[in-house]
Amino acid sequence: MSLREVAHSIRTMEIRGAGEIARAGANALKDFAQGYKGKDIDRFKNQLEGGKKLLLSTRPTAISLWNALQTVTKGAKDSKDIEELRDLIVANADGFVSRSKDAVKMIGKVGSQRIKGGDRILTHCNSKAALSVIGHAFRDGKKIEVTVTESRPWRQGLQTAKELARDGIPTTLIIDSAVRWVMKDIDLVYVGADTVASNGAVINKIGTSQIALIAHEARVPFIVCAETFKFSPKTVHGELVQIEERDPSEIVKEGEIPKSVRIRNPVFDATPADYIDSIVTEVGVISPYAAYDIIVKELGQEMDLEI
Amino acid sequence: MSLREVAHSIRTMEIRGAGEIARAGANALKDFAQGYKGKDIDRFKNQLEGGKKLLLSTRPTAISLWNALQTVTKGAKDSKDIEELRDLIVANADGFVSRSKDAVKMIGKVGSQRIKGGDRILTHCNSKAALSVIGHAFRDGKKIEVTVTESRPWRQGLQTAKELARDGIPTTLIIDSAVRWVMKDIDLVYVGADTVASNGAVINKIGTSQIALIAHEARVPFIVCAETFKFSPKTVHGELVQIEERDPSEIVKEGEIPKSVRIRNPVFDATPADYIDSIVTEVGVISPYAAYDIIVKELGQEMDLEI
Amino acid sequence: MSLREVAHSIRTMEIRGAGEIARAGANALKDFAQGYKGKDIDRFKNQLEGGKKLLLSTRPTAISLWNALQTVTKGAKDSKDIEELRDLIVANADGFVSRSKDAVKMIGKVGSQRIKGGDRILTHCNSKAALSVIGHAFRDGKKIEVTVTESRPWRQGLQTAKELARDGIPTTLIIDSAVRWVMKDIDLVYVGADTVASNGAVINKIGTSQIALIAHEARVPFIVCAETFKFSPKTVHGELVQIEERDPSEIVKEGEIPKSVRIRNPVFDATPADYIDSIVTEVGVISPYAAYDIIVKELGQEMDLEI
Amino acid sequence: MSLREVAHSIRTMEIRGAGEIARAGANALKDFAQGYKGKDIDRFKNQLEGGKKLLLSTRPTAISLWNALQTVTKGAKDSKDIEELRDLIVANADGFVSRSKDAVKMIGKVGSQRIKGGDRILTHCNSKAALSVIGHAFRDGKKIEVTVTESRPWRQGLQTAKELARDGIPTTLIIDSAVRWVMKDIDLVYVGADTVASNGAVINKIGTSQIALIAHEARVPFIVCAETFKFSPKTVHGELVQIEERDPSEIVKEGEIPKSVRIRNPVFDATPADYIDSIVTEVGVISPYAAYDIIVKELGQEMDLEI
Amino acid sequence: MSLREVAHSIRTMEIRGAGEIARAGANALKDFAQGYKGKDIDRFKNQLEGGKKLLLSTRPTAISLWNALQTVTKGAKDSKDIEELRDLIVANADGFVSRSKDAVKMIGKVGSQRIKGGDRILTHCNSKAALSVIGHAFRDGKKIEVTVTESRPWRQGLQTAKELARDGIPTTLIIDSAVRWVMKDIDLVYVGADTVASNGAVINKIGTSQIALIAHEARVPFIVCAETFKFSPKTVHGELVQIEERDPSEIVKEGEIPKSVRIRNPVFDATPADYIDSIVTEVGVISPYAAYDIIVKELGQEMDLEI
Amino acid sequence: MSLREVAHSIRTMEIRGAGEIARAGANALKDFAQGYKGKDIDRFKNQLEGGKKLLLSTRPTAISLWNALQTVTKGAKDSKDIEELRDLIVANADGFVSRSKDAVKMIGKVGSQRIKGGDRILTHCNSKAALSVIGHAFRDGKKIEVTVTESRPWRQGLQTAKELARDGIPTTLIIDSAVRWVMKDIDLVYVGADTVASNGAVINKIGTSQIALIAHEARVPFIVCAETFKFSPKTVHGELVQIEERDPSEIVKEGEIPKSVRIRNPVFDATPADYIDSIVTEVGVISPYAAYDIIVKELGQEMDLEI
Repeated sequence: MSLREVAHSIRTMEIRGAGEIARAGANALKDFAQGYKGKDIDRFKNQLEGGKKLLLSTRPTAISLWNALQTVTKGAKDSKDIEELRDLIVANADGFVSRSKDAVKMIGKVGSQRIKGGDRILTHCNSKAALSVIGHAFRDGKKIEVTVTESRPWRQGLQTAKELARDGIPTTLIIDSAVRWVMKDIDLVYVGADTVASNGAVINKIGTSQIALIAHEARVPFIVCAETFKFSPKTVHGELVQIEERDPSEIVKEGEIPKSVRIRNPVFDATPADYIDSIVTEVGVISPYAAYDIIVKELGQEMDLEI
Repeated sequence: MSLREVAHSIRTMEIRGAGEIARAGANALKDFAQGYKGKDIDRFKNQLEGGKKLLLSTRPTAISLWNALQTVTKGAKDSKDIEELRDLIVANADGFVSRSKDAVKMIGKVGSQRIKGGDRILTHCNSKAALSVIGHAFRDGKKIEVTVTESRPWRQGLQTAKELARDGIPTTLIIDSAVRWVMKDIDLVYVGADTVASNGAVINKIGTSQIALIAHEARVPFIVCAETFKFSPKTVHGELVQIEERDPSEIVKEGEIPKSVRIRNPVFDATPADYIDSIVTEVGVISPYAAYDIIVKELGQEMDLEI
Repeated sequence: MSLREVAHSIRTMEIRGAGEIARAGANALKDFAQGYKGKDIDRFKNQLEGGKKLLLSTRPTAISLWNALQTVTKGAKDSKDIEELRDLIVANADGFVSRSKDAVKMIGKVGSQRIKGGDRILTHCNSKAALSVIGHAFRDGKKIEVTVTESRPWRQGLQTAKELARDGIPTTLIIDSAVRWVMKDIDLVYVGADTVASNGAVINKIGTSQIALIAHEARVPFIVCAETFKFSPKTVHGELVQIEERDPSEIVKEGEIPKSVRIRNPVFDATPADYIDSIVTEVGVISPYAAYDIIVKELGQEMDLEI
Repeated sequence: MSLREVAHSIRTMEIRGAGEIARAGANALKDFAQGYKGKDIDRFKNQLEGGKKLLLSTRPTAISLWNALQTVTKGAKDSKDIEELRDLIVANADGFVSRSKDAVKMIGKVGSQRIKGGDRILTHCNSKAALSVIGHAFRDGKKIEVTVTESRPWRQGLQTAKELARDGIPTTLIIDSAVRWVMKDIDLVYVGADTVASNGAVINKIGTSQIALIAHEARVPFIVCAETFKFSPKTVHGELVQIEERDPSEIVKEGEIPKSVRIRNPVFDATPADYIDSIVTEVGVISPYAAYDIIVKELGQEMDLEI
Repeated sequence: MSLREVAHSIRTMEIRGAGEIARAGANALKDFAQGYKGKDIDRFKNQLEGGKKLLLSTRPTAISLWNALQTVTKGAKDSKDIEELRDLIVANADGFVSRSKDAVKMIGKVGSQRIKGGDRILTHCNSKAALSVIGHAFRDGKKIEVTVTESRPWRQGLQTAKELARDGIPTTLIIDSAVRWVMKDIDLVYVGADTVASNGAVINKIGTSQIALIAHEARVPFIVCAETFKFSPKTVHGELVQIEERDPSEIVKEGEIPKSVRIRNPVFDATPADYIDSIVTEVGVISPYAAYDIIVKELGQEMDLEI
Repeated sequence: MSLREVAHSIRTMEIRGAGEIARAGANALKDFAQGYKGKDIDRFKNQLEGGKKLLLSTRPTAISLWNALQTVTKGAKDSKDIEELRDLIVANADGFVSRSKDAVKMIGKVGSQRIKGGDRILTHCNSKAALSVIGHAFRDGKKIEVTVTESRPWRQGLQTAKELARDGIPTTLIIDSAVRWVMKDIDLVYVGADTVASNGAVINKIGTSQIALIAHEARVPFIVCAETFKFSPKTVHGELVQIEERDPSEIVKEGEIPKSVRIRNPVFDATPADYIDSIVTEVGVISPYAAYDIIVKELGQEMDLEI
């Protein structure tokens, strides 16, 4: 697939999921670099920059894609040779893809140690990282039970329930309104993340923040599983994470309610760090308040804002 | 309809809704009393008692029905004359039905005074009493906006949205997971009640308690609208309000998820009094902690338990 | 003074303070009744009703005045004889005035028992009832210290400081912003009340609710001193206590800030019952949540609203 | 035993426990009345009054004894005939003793309904009323487990553990410091009460209030079991419940620590109503905030304070 | 102005405000260095050290001044040449002054991104950094409204209101006691800082901490704007930030209250990190809990304490 | 003592206390290295590794020992020369021992600055670091009072009381259940730590977490004193700190309770970072949320986990 085709596929949701998007973007830049035939280093740089902008425009709020493309182009500016630049891009891209694949496994290994036999776990939506933790614990022989929320409007909870059931993990499904009712019988909550902000707030699937509040009320640890490329250097720069609102048709069908009724369909919400026990990353378990630390150490934050 | 037919209709959900059930039960006993032809006062009492038991068995956890039948048969024991007893039952039944109809209107009038022009109100499910309050405020010319939760699994929020839209009230629909996201722009929450317990806890549609928690977190007043016949004398006697769990088919269709996945489908949950600003009843606005007071004054509690 | 003159004096603030207004209103009706020379019982009743309305119009939100006039005219409707009605009004008025004078003393006696030697007390504004408690404790020989807030904009805290200093009580004055700073060294907070609502909320001098919050944060008991005629039967009927906003000139002088700056000058705020340890009344110490109880028992609430 | 002997036995702790003391006091007055041989009604009254004072002096802070003696002498003032007065005292005393014995059983019946099969219960110290609830639930066939705190310094938890083990109830013992550690695996807390104050605070064995706080933090219902004669009319009158401090020798033995170390040994502490889900009494389950209601209805509060 | 004159001007408050003081101090050392005519490197160092001590003595608790002078003299010890040392001092001073001027602008740019059109903002006292944020948002075309507290005793809120009104920003003024009353209609709080401690606590104008508490109660983000030179390396070393208490005459005029009344006039209070959503600095948005991180990275903390 | 003997002494508790164990382990490796006579670098390394494993096996959950041995063997892998390796081990061990001895003194100096004259301090168990702080403040002439908990089951509070009394510090002893009762008269809490986790949670003597909760409820700063070698790099890797449960005989003697009663005797509990004001370390005062920072900077965390 050409870079243009990859951009199209991301835009139309053929490629989706924070990790998939990030890796597809990294590979698209790599392929472009490998295929570049020109001789002019400046043109090469310009075209790389153009490709990066095109890819970013497909999902302007996805920090995983932004981090991926920043990583792939790291050092490109200073390059003075086409060969060297091509090698740099390829190495950066391969490194990113490889690390991002390993990250989910590592999170599973690291995060599962908190789980004890007999634990009853609640999860929301369909997070690869959270499921990696749960699966790791189960494969280690811990007798666990998992409760999954339906996760309206897309009902990804059904997908999660299928995956857990396929692996033989005892699974219960509830509607999103039943979280507080069930919380008295839950020992741990594991969820994923779309974005981690520099003040430790976690942006994730709509409903996450109220689950966190409900867990906090009942002294149940609420644990976020997030690869470091979900941490947002842009929030260090003050950028407020935009909460995308999607089409009403995801919630009601044509004619179900009068047209005068407005429908709001936010995709994400923001969970304050106060309600988060810890974040499991591929570089270890941290407090959400260490987010700034991670951003600086793992991602760099380049405060080159002009005043 | 004979008493037996009424019992059947309640059992099969043809007659439903706390108020409807209560009034149907009251009228069934009245009709039975009016139609009674016998001459033996003791047989009359026995048959009344039997009719009451039959009706109660159709919905053993519905406190509104229990309160209605207690009211209708109040004083029956001491009656020594068939005529007198018949008149008593008829008068009691008519009184209950009339008061229960007025109660919703009175709650609308009393409860709407808390609402100011410009207020943004959130409601859950489809509560006649809560909608009476909202409608009253709107008809008084207050410019209000209402946000309604979808209220899975039955999605009664759609019905609520229709009713509000029909009356011209600006209405927004959200999914149940979006309550915390929207709460920052809400001024007041109004919900109904299925049962009010003697310690002030309110049992209502699943999801109510987490909305209350979310409102409490944001210092948004959470107000319950409940006729006094929703208050439960049985909870004074220690009875724990049973939370009915209904059929999984209300949540997922055949084949949507593997059979090994368990589904829990609770109808109600319990909101602790701590999160409730006040309860609007037809006898006035009270703190939830005055529930015992109301039960004693309005319903009697007859602590004739044998040890 | 004629009833008309009393009304004028209340309106122009010559007579002020919840207790003074209430007693003046009661005496005005009494004087009118004693001076009535007519022979027609219905005219007498009409004129009494008119006088009551006139007095109420002077301060439509003052519940103490409303309660006083309700008490004075209690039973008037059923009276069938001019003499009898006159005696009733006089007896009711004398009873109210006498009880309201005793109430402050009784509150002092009852409320002071909570204070121990060495206690450091904070008070806000200038409440007769709260000062009665503090004075009682001091005269009982308890070594106490009192911290007083300035209570902008009228700075009644200076008046309170004067009264305490005059009695020889060690007194400290702070600005309103320093409450949280000083709270770590406070053992008890005593304040007065303008109105107690049926859900237990207390309406009192602006700033009271944030002092209550700050006391709650530090586990310092926050105690309200309120005669029963401060409890509002109208809040049972749903009436929201209106927070009066007064003239900007009380806050800034002409020319101190540009005219485009809006000034808001609320007189009262509402303290939620959650932050109130107890209310000291002349009939004893209660939880704020017993407000409905007190209203029903001490004041009657006459739910004769038409639907 | 003569009244004087009973007084001695209470003072020396031969008779102890709130219920035992109350019943012994009631019977002592009854025996005295039955044995009275004089003919002078005024002397009889004086001697009764003297006997009451003597009994009260043995445990001046025990509200159960005060309530018992108030009940026994209720109506005595108005009596004009020796026979009549004797009968009154006997009837009052018998009534009190009988009701107080039934109360523990009734509390067991009423309170146990909140317990479900599988529930893990925590209790503190050695409360007859709380154990009545637990025993009732167990005899009803509910599979429960009970965790008991050691309850230093007297270690009554060992006595409680023995009683539970004797009945075959699965029991675990922990030290008082381990309450928060174990709370994550507790479903309900049941404790007794020494005194219930008019604002809903509960005075009970030292440590109770921190267990309540820990339960509240984890959303675990904290339920108090208290006969109505534990409710204190004196707190309505403002009296602060005195927390008795007992001898250091209960905590350390001679020579264990230097004499310069001060030891504080409070017997009770006060649990704020905020942390109490409900109080189970023999007249039903109430919110702690209904304490004033119970005091007025069940005990009378006779506000005859002189100003 | 000579260094001695600058010191005098700081002491007498002619030069005031954390930033002004810091820059004046830096420039004073620079001017001294530039004017130094001697030949002896050791004397030069001694005199620089003496000048630094003199300047620090003018405001011993002002961390901004301390940080400025530490920055200016950084590396001075190791210098072996007069020219080199003079250049170092000049470069350090110019760098500090330039960065501190840019910092307020950068904070405005970074911090304003959190503000959305329609937001209602509350601010306290008169913070350059907070006003930079508000002004930036307004100039970006966001329709905002600002509420300002009076900020007794100096009433800097009037100054703030003037500046906002001058820029055309819709502004409301309230007294300090009205913060909780107005908070229900506030979306964001922005304040400045005097000192940021290593555990994340923020020392700022008296009243700040209670505004933070009130915002927290209502789920309103409370954001601190602070240049990095407000962060205190001394708090890493355990130093408790001293809260200066100023003259009573700032609160009451001669004769307004009896002399026996003590007046406490603290200038600052400490806001715990729990109530702070984030801190906006010129190096980005951080959690208050990252304060230690900032101190180490931006300021160094030189733990050369002798034991 | 040979390494084997040291291992034995640790295992049998002859050597105990986090610091003592750590230093004994470090010295054992040093002695072994100094005594090593072989010529083969690889064998030397193997034997060192074996010794380390043996020592670690004596107390597998003691992070202080683990950190000590990691420090002592740091860089050993890369060593290519026996002399060099021996010198490295010796230098590392000496450095660790020296720093760990200084750390307690430094913590005393740093932590005592928070204490003011008149402060009433509470401490739990017997922490060298906490007592270093208290002693430092007292020797600085601050008039303080200390309350000590008994700390069942071992009652180390008695030991603490003895040490404080010996130094002339006014000391009070209470049972563990009396913490909430006494907290209203406490200004600061200082405790030690066994382990600090990467999310800021502190593992310490059983009872610590409930004291922290009680302090938090009353706005009393809760401060932990911990040398950096108490911070656990293993928690970064996800390891859950195991809470050791010890023998029942520490709580009850043979025959005191029936054998069917289970006894749980946890040694430690986990205090969430939310309840901790700050941690005093030998490198300064930090927020608990900076734990990850400290682990990375002071200890390294070497995330070389295999997936």
